[in-house]
Amino acid sequence: MTDTAAAIHLSYIELVALLERIFVRHRVSQENAAILAQNCAGCERDGALSHGIFRMAGYVSSLESGWVDGKAIPQVEDVGPAFVRVDAKGGFAQPALSAARPLLIEKIKENGVAVLAIRRSHHFSALWPDVEPFAEAGYVALSVVNSMACVVPHGGRKAVFGTNPMAFASPRAGAAPFVFDQASSAIAHGDVQIAARAGHELRPGTGVDRDGQATTDPRHVLAGGALLPFGGHKGNSIALMVEILSAALTGGYFSGEFDWSGHKGAQTPFTGQFFIVIDPTRGGNAVFAERVAGICDLVLDAGQERLPGDRRHATRAQNEKTGIPLSAQDHAKLLALAGDEDFALDPVSHPR
Amino acid sequence: MTDTAAAIHLSYIELVALLERIFVRHRVSQENAAILAQNCAGCERDGALSHGIFRMAGYVSSLESGWVDGKAIPQVEDVGPAFVRVDAKGGFAQPALSAARPLLIEKIKENGVAVLAIRRSHHFSALWPDVEPFAEAGYVALSVVNSMACVVPHGGRKAVFGTNPMAFASPRAGAAPFVFDQASSAIAHGDVQIAARAGHELRPGTGVDRDGQATTDPRHVLAGGALLPFGGHKGNSIALMVEILSAALTGGYFSGEFDWSGHKGAQTPFTGQFFIVIDPTRGGNAVFAERVAGICDLVLDAGQERLPGDRRHATRAQNEKTGIPLSAQDHAKLLALAGDEDFALDPVSHPR
Repeated sequence: MTDTAAAIHLSYIELVALLERIFVRHRVSQENAAILAQNCAGCERDGALSHGIFRMAGYVSSLESGWVDGKAIPQVEDVGPAFVRVDAKGGFAQPALSAARPLLIEKIKENGVAVLAIRRSHHFSALWPDVEPFAEAGYVALSVVNSMACVVPHGGRKAVFGTNPMAFASPRAGAAPFVFDQASSAIAHGDVQIAARAGHELRPGTGVDRDGQATTDPRHVLAGGALLPFGGHKGNSIALMVEILSAALTGGYFSGEFDWSGHKGAQTPFTGQFFIVIDPTRGGNAVFAERVAGICDLVLDAGQERLPGDRRHATRAQNEKTGIPLSAQDHAKLLALAGDEDFALDPVSHPR
Repeated sequence: MTDTAAAIHLSYIELVALLERIFVRHRVSQENAAILAQNCAGCERDGALSHGIFRMAGYVSSLESGWVDGKAIPQVEDVGPAFVRVDAKGGFAQPALSAARPLLIEKIKENGVAVLAIRRSHHFSALWPDVEPFAEAGYVALSVVNSMACVVPHGGRKAVFGTNPMAFASPRAGAAPFVFDQASSAIAHGDVQIAARAGHELRPGTGVDRDGQATTDPRHVLAGGALLPFGGHKGNSIALMVEILSAALTGGYFSGEFDWSGHKGAQTPFTGQFFIVIDPTRGGNAVFAERVAGICDLVLDAGQERLPGDRRHATRAQNEKTGIPLSAQDHAKLLALAGDEDFALDPVSHPR
């Protein structure tokens, strides 16, 4: 990014405050806005740009369409000593997680493991922000979320699965947690759009055209085609497992099931999300986090360039020092969404 | 298989009895032998031949080397309302699972979810037999096990991971459970050996030579080379997660860590295994199993040829009618391992 492109640097707190104002201005309650703004600003701060401020127009569009309820108050249900459910009531998944978290943590501490099943929820962000805080608190967390049908089953011709990511986070001694967050699709939908704009071919095995035939032309994928699962039939099985856990088990919708046709501008998938969170100290291994660091070191010693999450954590450290870089254009767009057109050329801080 | 090749048909009970006698003859306790024989005969019955009687010579070799303790009595530890540990005491993982199962089921019923961490265990079979019975009993089960270093990390040059399978099983209304069991490697080690013998090339992206360079020559993979994870960096992250759950969390060995050099003939990896088992009825979705059947049907309707497990279940149904087919040669080998050389050409039944 050139200096001109990144003309403005906001602190995390400043960016959160700005995004919070945008959410509140577009049908989101103050409480939910704070959660969503922290999530989105955290993605931008970590350099996870596809889920950062780039998403704000989509959030606003979906909120204004009435498809997602920004003011939803999640209903937490205590359904077992180690089982928590949440009805997100048509709102975003992150406030549902936030509402359930204290009870979930209590149950993990008490029992050694607990699960969280969120239903009737919209998820429009990365999945790592949902699991990483558990690892920072000393727990091992796995989460899956289904999305909207855009992935054909292995050997199939019709989209059934969403990109269906799985995220995993574990404490790691002497370093940030080990965290991965990966789609079950061979490629992200956004990357297909980027390839189409740039006129690039896709890697073989990433997409099919409207007839279910393999194609490397991103325009054919976008014109009624679909993505393929990563890793052939194995990624396919993971995508199916994600549907079972996120939708069948929670009582949410499958990726191909919800109907947003009555909501022009809707962009957020209305599905479910599932968490498994484990207290590793119950495993009896007093050096668990050291062992995780050990296997991570072995992988790097064997020649793997970097671990998932490492670049993100490095970007975070950098941006916490220098501020989060935004182009003047992006900053102006955010100010416009916040109703601050007049201030678009005056990048002052917006303390919370 | 020609009629000549499958000259003999044994019932499941008969095959179990024969395998049981082999295990008992080779340093396995009667109780453990019954568990291992049922496991191995079940693989053969289901047509999962790479983990069926094909493995018996390896079991015997490992047992006779003194590397694995066939008489080990697993020690079950109740370490939390939803957490069970087992010290397999250097024996096989299946008797450890069997010993822990009643307590685990009790905890799942009580809490909605429970985990099982097995350490100091040898796993030499498929993983689906460990999870499928949970699904038959109405639970959703996920298990992972690490093995022996033969997979290089993505972009790396030295083997760190085992083939590190993950297995998942879920109840499915009106059908056998949905079950998958898949290695984190791009190919099974046995398939490399088969390709080398047959003089076939490997698919690109499945293996590396001794210098960590990509190769499609199976002989180069076998001569000090290694396998690659499936699906690039994504399969790689799953392989690493499997190490963390199976070894770091349980207190077992990583795949590259145990030393069997003092045991000539040792073949069984000495690592750990982890289970997460969920009671789906706690999820509040009364039609859970119907929903699983529904998404499975959608996948088949979209054109996927079959679901993982389906072919195995069909083979089982067939073999339960006709008996499990064995070639006269394989049957003779089993009889020899059982010490029945005299009966090698007389394929009578061996009732238990």
